[in-house]
Amino acid sequence: MATGDIVLGPNQYGKAENRLVRITRDTDRHEIEDLNVTSQLRGDFVACHVEGDNSQVVATDTQKNTVYAFAQQHGIGSPEQFLLTLGEHFVTSFDWVCGGRWEAELYAWERIAVDGRPHDHSFVRTGREVRTTVVQKDGDQTWVLAGFKDATVLKSTGSEFHGFPRDRYTTLRETTDRILATSVTAWWRYTSTDVDWNARYEAIKAVLLETFASVHSLALQQTIFAMGRAVLEQFDDVAEIRLSCPNKHHFLVDLEPFGLDNPNEVFFAADRPYGLIQATVQREGAPQAPQAWATVPGFC
Amino acid sequence: MATGDIVLGPNQYGKAENRLVRITRDTDRHEIEDLNVTSQLRGDFVACHVEGDNSQVVATDTQKNTVYAFAQQHGIGSPEQFLLTLGEHFVTSFDWVCGGRWEAELYAWERIAVDGRPHDHSFVRTGREVRTTVVQKDGDQTWVLAGFKDATVLKSTGSEFHGFPRDRYTTLRETTDRILATSVTAWWRYTSTDVDWNARYEAIKAVLLETFASVHSLALQQTIFAMGRAVLEQFDDVAEIRLSCPNKHHFLVDLEPFGLDNPNEVFFAADRPYGLIQATVQREGAPQAPQAWATVPGFC
Amino acid sequence: MATGDIVLGPNQYGKAENRLVRITRDTDRHEIEDLNVTSQLRGDFVACHVEGDNSQVVATDTQKNTVYAFAQQHGIGSPEQFLLTLGEHFVTSFDWVCGGRWEAELYAWERIAVDGRPHDHSFVRTGREVRTTVVQKDGDQTWVLAGFKDATVLKSTGSEFHGFPRDRYTTLRETTDRILATSVTAWWRYTSTDVDWNARYEAIKAVLLETFASVHSLALQQTIFAMGRAVLEQFDDVAEIRLSCPNKHHFLVDLEPFGLDNPNEVFFAADRPYGLIQATVQREGAPQAPQAWATVPGFC
Amino acid sequence: MATGDIVLGPNQYGKAENRLVRITRDTDRHEIEDLNVTSQLRGDFVACHVEGDNSQVVATDTQKNTVYAFAQQHGIGSPEQFLLTLGEHFVTSFDWVCGGRWEAELYAWERIAVDGRPHDHSFVRTGREVRTTVVQKDGDQTWVLAGFKDATVLKSTGSEFHGFPRDRYTTLRETTDRILATSVTAWWRYTSTDVDWNARYEAIKAVLLETFASVHSLALQQTIFAMGRAVLEQFDDVAEIRLSCPNKHHFLVDLEPFGLDNPNEVFFAADRPYGLIQATVQREGAPQAPQAWATVPGFC
Repeated sequence: MATGDIVLGPNQYGKAENRLVRITRDTDRHEIEDLNVTSQLRGDFVACHVEGDNSQVVATDTQKNTVYAFAQQHGIGSPEQFLLTLGEHFVTSFDWVCGGRWEAELYAWERIAVDGRPHDHSFVRTGREVRTTVVQKDGDQTWVLAGFKDATVLKSTGSEFHGFPRDRYTTLRETTDRILATSVTAWWRYTSTDVDWNARYEAIKAVLLETFASVHSLALQQTIFAMGRAVLEQFDDVAEIRLSCPNKHHFLVDLEPFGLDNPNEVFFAADRPYGLIQATVQREGAPQAPQAWATVPGFC
Repeated sequence: MATGDIVLGPNQYGKAENRLVRITRDTDRHEIEDLNVTSQLRGDFVACHVEGDNSQVVATDTQKNTVYAFAQQHGIGSPEQFLLTLGEHFVTSFDWVCGGRWEAELYAWERIAVDGRPHDHSFVRTGREVRTTVVQKDGDQTWVLAGFKDATVLKSTGSEFHGFPRDRYTTLRETTDRILATSVTAWWRYTSTDVDWNARYEAIKAVLLETFASVHSLALQQTIFAMGRAVLEQFDDVAEIRLSCPNKHHFLVDLEPFGLDNPNEVFFAADRPYGLIQATVQREGAPQAPQAWATVPGFC
Repeated sequence: MATGDIVLGPNQYGKAENRLVRITRDTDRHEIEDLNVTSQLRGDFVACHVEGDNSQVVATDTQKNTVYAFAQQHGIGSPEQFLLTLGEHFVTSFDWVCGGRWEAELYAWERIAVDGRPHDHSFVRTGREVRTTVVQKDGDQTWVLAGFKDATVLKSTGSEFHGFPRDRYTTLRETTDRILATSVTAWWRYTSTDVDWNARYEAIKAVLLETFASVHSLALQQTIFAMGRAVLEQFDDVAEIRLSCPNKHHFLVDLEPFGLDNPNEVFFAADRPYGLIQATVQREGAPQAPQAWATVPGFC
Repeated sequence: MATGDIVLGPNQYGKAENRLVRITRDTDRHEIEDLNVTSQLRGDFVACHVEGDNSQVVATDTQKNTVYAFAQQHGIGSPEQFLLTLGEHFVTSFDWVCGGRWEAELYAWERIAVDGRPHDHSFVRTGREVRTTVVQKDGDQTWVLAGFKDATVLKSTGSEFHGFPRDRYTTLRETTDRILATSVTAWWRYTSTDVDWNARYEAIKAVLLETFASVHSLALQQTIFAMGRAVLEQFDDVAEIRLSCPNKHHFLVDLEPFGLDNPNEVFFAADRPYGLIQATVQREGAPQAPQAWATVPGFC
């Protein structure tokens, strides 16, 4: 027979998208932490899948309760630290749980200004990029990925695209001045779990945006690589970084039929299709960590 | 017979969601204006509906072209001014077009900081609220509505809710300290077309957010009314304002089963259902403008 | 003084998007009804808005509870009947509630086939159009609107568009064969509350789709009018119907640069912008009901 | 020094979400194929990333043109076959392109019934599940994944959940009768490229839905495993299958406070959080294909 027994392969389960808001109110000046937390366990769950025996199934409801209880017991601090604490709990509490995946999104808020002063307990969501974290554990190993998504950036000049090969299906014109716009999704892998997570996040984000702004672009690929390289050059405990950037096309509108010039001023912002550029920047010879990336969508 | 002939009633048509980006590049310091523009015409279109005679149908494609051409010919300046110019064009260019509706969303960008200085031509979308405008014309009349949506705000204290009636179906507990969170949709009607649109928009938005922050809330209704009243008190050329505010519930998580206190610190942010509070604040005795509001969703 | 006192204008409030699934399990052959219900009350709520006095504020939580309790006490049957029952309850239970607005979406399911036979209690969501209903009450008056949204339809031929006026901004070519595609949003107003709601809904939907299919189209406007007229001709208790139809453009791809013909075979389906055609079809001389339509978005 | 040179790691790029509609009109009875196609190339693109040298960058615009041209030259037939043809073209046309990833979604349409007969050229989108395909090539190797997403299914009985471990954070009650609802995302890997793709897709989908319906469920894990096993048992050329299923919770509403019973009849359908169960079913000892799965989101 061509194939063997039918068996359970890789699997994980848990509670996804626990929306958690933590208010720190030790003083009248409150702090807010706003997260979307997903917990998933890995381990020996064969009996449940094959026989419906739930004796080793830590209920997804229990995982949810743990998220909320831990927010009170341990606070948040940073999504990375919160997920590390959660993960440690699950792998040490249940023999048959050998690892898992914990993910968080963090939404930023700022204080509403009243008479020019930031208010003590009133906030407005900033809505710029969403900060993201994935912590995974497998036995003794722990991987921490951090990043963000939905950072929409645009250069109104300083971007060219030419010199590409032409075949039967090529009609694109070369350009030495175009709008370059993208929505940056970035993921980087830390080699340490002893990091000042919030400060480091802000520093890396700033480097990425500054590099996007500063590089004179000959291709979005070149911009992306420069962004990633700048991060690796400055932060030793970042092992590698992955960037996924849609090329959000802004087409110059042809106004000639209406007797009008259009010297790179009026553009149509298109939805679909869009270019999609995805690249990893890494350190030569450094150890790889394929498991760390296995569940991050959209990379190769 | 109970009913008369079957006839065409109110109708409008046009091109929706023209995504328009206008770069002003007179100097090296570029400016960006990013809009989503919808144009719809009203007038005598019976022949098209009844017989398929298109001789009076200004093609929606033509309306689109006009949007992009006008962005070059007249610039944008503000969504209000741009729509007024567009509307005037259509009602004066075609005899049978007696009015219409022009709508725009405007997305805000800020400059990326490089070495602490705002960059000349690199921007990041702020992603807070979306600014909205609807201009309508009918013969000699013109109405201008302005507003915003998706301004998500939250007070971590300073909000109570009690004293409501109790019937058979009431289980809600009274509270003297809860999170109050909402996503503000605001629309206000100007009585003039001679307004410093951008400055006024920023001023009204600031008043709305400041009032949300400052008012000690006994009900979201009370907060909304105070927000609207503050705008009318300060700006004479605003005739009335409508606010639509989902009560984005943040439920205190019961941590007692886990032996933990939860003194208003850990919350579950719920998606659906949500309270929905909608109110108009207006000036007593002032003339109404039902036509101005006919196409604004979600109000009564 | 230019303006009078600042007062509360039209307002409504309630609980939005109560996701309700009702299983009828009198026999082994279960039935499923899946709704999204919004309840909003109108009446005398001045004290709450102005002073934060909640003594007349039927809590939105109470409205939610009532929705679920009524699903058990009275069943659903049809969204129209369920909302009529809900509305009657609120206006008769609280003196100061003089009316309101109750809305529902209904999602369709069909039975999963097992060995060719529809299963007794296993269902798959059909995901075609979403059925919609809005019931409003004001004193003795009751309005029932019914309709649907998200019915995406397409004709691959039998659609022309030509004969439209040409001005400076017109570049569109005339065509005698194009794809016509739209996503139909339909709303009709019943003049009776004694209707076989489910059967009537299916019948009207069938007439609309059949007419879309059958009419040789010279303009989307003409198609829409024909669709509405067909409904009014067949159903006396429908007073009027409104249709809102985006023209989902399918652009013929120019394959000439690649040495290929494209005889109306390969199309690019565009997202934005899109034409947007909205029209009312009504009976001449019949009484109008502007209040019935005040809260339905997107019509003029 | 802790790290080596900073270099380019895995990368891919292309044109995403080319919305393609292909009409076959050899006879009056038209056929429609409606796809969303993404093309991404892998190979030697170092010079572009590092130096902005585009001489090996097949423009994403060229990839788009190729998609539309191939739809005309070769037709579609099935998403699997179309992507295989596309992929073969790219890897044989450009020396430095050693592989890539081609993805498609396919949207189903059915004919509108007119007088009880399916119309020749008028269609309505069915909107049930979306069919998905990913083809990847690397040198001589080719992997074909097929599947679907957004198939929302529900059992109103025949589902239990009990016997799970209880710890400090467990509050969930055991149940012997609950609603089981999920939105199935399924991916399976073929071991052949000589498959009757459309027929096979329909057959596998039917097996998955039938098994969901038939299995008396003790856990969603058990249901998923049974679904996958049934597919592997029946189809020899399916190497393995992965299922990702949110547990769309339907909570029984507590109507006791209102003096009402609720014998599993009235449910609140919750949005977030949700359980998330993901599992692979495979053949023991069969060769694995980690590269085939590297870009499929949400699995471990």
